[in-house]
Amino acid sequence: MNVLIVGLGLIGGSYAKGLTKASYNVYGSDINIESINYAKENGFIIDGSVDPEEYIKKCELIVIGLYPTQIIPFIEKYQHLFNENQIITDVCGIKSSVVYEATKKALPALYCGSHPMAGREKVGVKYASELIFKNTNFLITPIENTKKRAIDVIEKMALDLGFGRIHSISPEHHDKMIAYTSQLTHAIAVSLVDSETAVDVTSFIGDSYRDLTRIAMINEKLWSELFMDNKKFLIEEINKFEAQLTRMKNDLENNDYDDLKAMFIESKARREVM
Amino acid sequence: MNVLIVGLGLIGGSYAKGLTKASYNVYGSDINIESINYAKENGFIIDGSVDPEEYIKKCELIVIGLYPTQIIPFIEKYQHLFNENQIITDVCGIKSSVVYEATKKALPALYCGSHPMAGREKVGVKYASELIFKNTNFLITPIENTKKRAIDVIEKMALDLGFGRIHSISPEHHDKMIAYTSQLTHAIAVSLVDSETAVDVTSFIGDSYRDLTRIAMINEKLWSELFMDNKKFLIEEINKFEAQLTRMKNDLENNDYDDLKAMFIESKARREVM
Repeated sequence: MNVLIVGLGLIGGSYAKGLTKASYNVYGSDINIESINYAKENGFIIDGSVDPEEYIKKCELIVIGLYPTQIIPFIEKYQHLFNENQIITDVCGIKSSVVYEATKKALPALYCGSHPMAGREKVGVKYASELIFKNTNFLITPIENTKKRAIDVIEKMALDLGFGRIHSISPEHHDKMIAYTSQLTHAIAVSLVDSETAVDVTSFIGDSYRDLTRIAMINEKLWSELFMDNKKFLIEEINKFEAQLTRMKNDLENNDYDDLKAMFIESKARREVM
Repeated sequence: MNVLIVGLGLIGGSYAKGLTKASYNVYGSDINIESINYAKENGFIIDGSVDPEEYIKKCELIVIGLYPTQIIPFIEKYQHLFNENQIITDVCGIKSSVVYEATKKALPALYCGSHPMAGREKVGVKYASELIFKNTNFLITPIENTKKRAIDVIEKMALDLGFGRIHSISPEHHDKMIAYTSQLTHAIAVSLVDSETAVDVTSFIGDSYRDLTRIAMINEKLWSELFMDNKKFLIEEINKFEAQLTRMKNDLENNDYDDLKAMFIESKARREVM
């Protein structure tokens, strides 16, 4: 199968590398010619160009590896080249605001949203590796008029890339859960590191602080788009998290050992199940 | 040098193992005979007993590996056996409430507080390993009347155990910083996992969530003591952290992309320095 990866960044580059290993014929496009050259020289893609037209025409699968706000503009710009044999997906971490519009505008091509739950604290094709997908979650977000053929192709692609668990859910459920497991965790890490106490802390750092702040090295352009787009769910999740933190503060202020221990016992039990 | 480790848990057991490797003569005491037998059978200690009296008499260094609230009672109980050639330290994660009283009550023995910033999500001597200390921080908390000889012995012990960085600070500064780097991170992890959304999340988990919640598997007895004892500083740190989280919520509500990005840029820069 011929595949075009649009956007050879960390994720797009890792798709290219992994799909080439899985014997897909992979082509690439990027606004940066150096990323294309790097991907070609390292065998991630057969060929590529800053102008995707030629490859759009000959590929049956198109993976849009662009930032959230660039997905619909890309589809609008190249829709006249799409055909009904093509499957299109993207890799972005928010879905309701993308999936409905993309499904409509991509026609006659068949669009189906998906989200590879993998990443790194590095940016660019030079850090691409298909190993980042190993044993991680892959989410597919079909809607009422998504064609089964599109779902099947995306699912097979995810299997071929080595994802550990593939799960189908609605775009809305996706966005609600991602607000909790992914966006809230990033909001916490950033707030922790931005706290005024975080100066000269090196001598006091243990594993816990290192683990909780790793993701504070965040790509501000990508994540400000993700946060703003999903702000309704994210604010809800921040509030629910703060409710637990407030409960803990109250326990401390009231010397309520019993409830404090109950919080710890509950978190231990829940985390063990995961 | 003869050393007595009081309390053969995860940390005490790891001290025993590491100090034996570093050619100290290590003895152990614990209320649980099975822990002593395990430590002896596995070569962590030369010998041990549930009654520490014999070993207190013959050891020049005593490491109290007990829970915070048990340290002063231990010193009070055995003070009559102490002599001026002995150095005593402990391993607990809070210092102001222990150090002043312990220094006074341990006399004629020389007490100096310290805190190995290492741990595991496991409990007990069976998980002991001196490798948990490799490249981690070791904090020494001397006060005005701490004797230099005690500091020197503790420092050498930390070097022999393989700690990466040894740092001396006041008990108060210790407790303030630990409230931020260690206790706040545990408070966050527990609150995150205790949030009402944390049900059926497995399919939505990525590395970030896994990293932020690992320490939610917490020993409720130990950590409720640590939290309550240091609640003044901990509540201050929760409040400072919440101020950043509130700032982020306001940015989202007001569509303030600029300040949201500023928060991300700041956290990235700070984290890179660490």
